[in-house]
Amino acid sequence: MSSGTNRRELAKADAAGIAAGGPVVILIQPQMGENIGACARAMLNCGLTELRLVAPRDGWPNEKAVSASAGATAVLDGVKVFDTTEAAISDLQKIYSTAARVRDLVKDIVTPREAAAEVRAHMEAGRRVGLMFGPERTGLNNDDITLSDTMISVPLNPGFSSLNLAQAVLLVAYEWWMAGEAGETEPRYTHTGASRPATKEELHNLFVHLEGELDQTGFYTHPDKRPSMIRNVRNTLQRAHLTEQEIRTFHGLIAALVGRKKQRTPGA
Amino acid sequence: MSSGTNRRELAKADAAGIAAGGPVVILIQPQMGENIGACARAMLNCGLTELRLVAPRDGWPNEKAVSASAGATAVLDGVKVFDTTEAAISDLQKIYSTAARVRDLVKDIVTPREAAAEVRAHMEAGRRVGLMFGPERTGLNNDDITLSDTMISVPLNPGFSSLNLAQAVLLVAYEWWMAGEAGETEPRYTHTGASRPATKEELHNLFVHLEGELDQTGFYTHPDKRPSMIRNVRNTLQRAHLTEQEIRTFHGLIAALVGRKKQRTPGA
Repeated sequence: MSSGTNRRELAKADAAGIAAGGPVVILIQPQMGENIGACARAMLNCGLTELRLVAPRDGWPNEKAVSASAGATAVLDGVKVFDTTEAAISDLQKIYSTAARVRDLVKDIVTPREAAAEVRAHMEAGRRVGLMFGPERTGLNNDDITLSDTMISVPLNPGFSSLNLAQAVLLVAYEWWMAGEAGETEPRYTHTGASRPATKEELHNLFVHLEGELDQTGFYTHPDKRPSMIRNVRNTLQRAHLTEQEIRTFHGLIAALVGRKKQRTPGA
Repeated sequence: MSSGTNRRELAKADAAGIAAGGPVVILIQPQMGENIGACARAMLNCGLTELRLVAPRDGWPNEKAVSASAGATAVLDGVKVFDTTEAAISDLQKIYSTAARVRDLVKDIVTPREAAAEVRAHMEAGRRVGLMFGPERTGLNNDDITLSDTMISVPLNPGFSSLNLAQAVLLVAYEWWMAGEAGETEPRYTHTGASRPATKEELHNLFVHLEGELDQTGFYTHPDKRPSMIRNVRNTLQRAHLTEQEIRTFHGLIAALVGRKKQRTPGA
């Protein structure tokens, strides 16, 4: 699902100043270059550009990070590398550590959504924030978690919680991005009264009936245009959110029109 | 960041009925088995278990999906395969299609968060919902989008929007999961008055000062216990969210305690 025009859009992003002021993402002892690249990609999707690595297993730079980043060079070019966690966070004021399992430490724990609201508040007050993630297999150890103010725990299916590193970064970064978006909107919904929304099979049968009848006319003027004409009408009917009752009505309507045409043109 | 006890937890999930009633995820012509597995993993993290494939390039079953699923067998075991999109959606009533770019079709478009609220409402009213995603490189074509009621567009950095298939599934599924979570909470925040939160370097220096002094005492009773004792005290101080002013006060406090002890035991 790539945009295909990354370089031009990255230049626009830089100009738009999207990079300024967001939290710093810190990866502690990341193991694989591909995962570093994937994290960079996840970050830039959500407007984050500052990435720091602590003791990456294979050093830095790392060619494998480049291809996995899918063009997120704005992030990779600015990576800073540190030997220790303490060094990587020393200029920051608030650190959030994300871990899969809550440890036996007394820590405040928030969801990514709660963290995002807090991070925005800290940023508005001029405080620098870091988002810390651990190595791929083991996650953050207790000493690194202790260096953070707050833990982020992603609320997931208690029966199956298995995010990879880049996905964890993506969810936390995504919530931060969403916390900056314009205000809430009401969920959209269409009332259907006594009937019910048609199934897609019922709708498909209506399409087939209608298009079959139209094929008997000169409606589809050019074979080249037929696919797009069909699509446009289908989209129109789709937007009507037809109920099962309406579908039946439309079948009758189509049949009536065909019958009327036959009446008007005897022998046709 | 895997949980490490997937089988037992999956059994618990089944028992908890997490699988029942969520939207169906439909992948149209998925190309790589690894991506199918990654989607299954993303789904189960967010409590979704029903996966349908339309004309998967390499057929089904697919061994490469298994390892990429990180244990999400509850999803893979139940996969249904169809030849056409129409067949895959025929029993459903509301379809959401997710695409990176808005096409030149007239469609309603919502964010994943808005979609999640709508999906929850549809489910409560007994309507079956499908979430449709397209092939990895090209995304959904116009004909498949036309088969959907509503498009989901993930609000991302306009300068860089490049999610892979499993990440798109993850974000949509995550929002659905979050729409089921307990209500909002206030963002947590500590007021700091005239001072400012300390930097991590200032806090680290306090830890070093304190632990250095304690090493001169019998405080760390056993070398084995020293690391955890240090961590526990650091966590306590971390939770205090010390300001720069408080750090300076604590340095003075430590120095005073040490000086006072020397006064009370002359010659020590």
